[in-house]
Amino acid sequence: MAELILTTFDWVPETPRGYVRDIRVRWALEEGRLPYRVESVPFNARNAEHFLRQPFGQVPWLTDGELSMFESGAILLHLGHRSKALMPTDPHGCSAATEWLFAALNSVEMASLPWALLLSLGDASETPWRTLLDDFLKARLKHMEPILAEREWLAGRFSVADIAMADVLRLVDRFDGLATYPGCRDYVARATARPAFVKAHADQIAHFAAAD
Amino acid sequence: MAELILTTFDWVPETPRGYVRDIRVRWALEEGRLPYRVESVPFNARNAEHFLRQPFGQVPWLTDGELSMFESGAILLHLGHRSKALMPTDPHGCSAATEWLFAALNSVEMASLPWALLLSLGDASETPWRTLLDDFLKARLKHMEPILAEREWLAGRFSVADIAMADVLRLVDRFDGLATYPGCRDYVARATARPAFVKAHADQIAHFAAAD
Repeated sequence: MAELILTTFDWVPETPRGYVRDIRVRWALEEGRLPYRVESVPFNARNAEHFLRQPFGQVPWLTDGELSMFESGAILLHLGHRSKALMPTDPHGCSAATEWLFAALNSVEMASLPWALLLSLGDASETPWRTLLDDFLKARLKHMEPILAEREWLAGRFSVADIAMADVLRLVDRFDGLATYPGCRDYVARATARPAFVKAHADQIAHFAAAD
Repeated sequence: MAELILTTFDWVPETPRGYVRDIRVRWALEEGRLPYRVESVPFNARNAEHFLRQPFGQVPWLTDGELSMFESGAILLHLGHRSKALMPTDPHGCSAATEWLFAALNSVEMASLPWALLLSLGDASETPWRTLLDDFLKARLKHMEPILAEREWLAGRFSVADIAMADVLRLVDRFDGLATYPGCRDYVARATARPAFVKAHADQIAHFAAAD
């Protein structure tokens, strides 16, 4: 097996710490007990090599031997095929984990990230726009709530789908968006209580703090 | 091979016609020359069976023998593994198509869909929110522009990544968001000129019109 290298920023401001998307990859690598090392690229001066690896100038990307891969969702799927701890191996379980991985990113996060971005502006006034984004997010959470109240993990057992969904929902929780969704809140709590998340989170915090 | 069944709504209002996400699946099925039939569920009265198949009460979903799958991204990936016309078979090409599929949905559409939703409200006033969403979309398009100006297709040759990316960008185009991105606009034009798209689009329009 080739060495896995996770690349993230050398430093980020205080606010995004603990929420930079490399945490999804760190978490998966820890769950799968896949050895890896972390490399850094400058946050403040993004060079051409960076854009070759990550065309939007963001992080993370993963190097697996000759493969270099961006997009946290694609990396999670790739790691899912490298460790049974991250993905069920039967066709139904694998299909369920894959569809829930996409659902986390393309159905829930598509509503939650713009909502969080706007809230981070500090504008809490009731405009038609605010209402639209609130409603967009609610349209997702109201359906996630009974599902997450009923099952421990999305695809029968813990998988990369839960890494994506729990990470998406904990950003909503950060802005108090889960107050009326106890099933979602409890799901975030049990996902982030896993030792692999605890280590991934501490490692990300320490990584950025080391550059202060 | 099991029979493929695509399920979509029986009817939708005028505005979303031609843009309902079943078009991504129709397009892929046509490109891959995979035989399929289309089934319908009520748009106006979504029942429990619908939510079992698609937990957010949306469409499409795909049935492939015993597998039932939701999320257009997951379906595209699944079909990519059923037809060489939809996905390169070498590891680098397959990895590139997968990361660009996620990029279309989780990097570009995450910015473009909320932007389009807000524009569809008809509110074009310059508020901090409008500026934020404009900037969020621009931060993606400015990096897609040189890439799409330079390459014909995202992963070396046409793949499911292009189906997702072109469909995401043509919604931006609908709201005149590609005016200053000729590389993106030309990419949408060459993607939607493909016979498989033309048939998929005509079929979706005809499907909904039949229920009027």
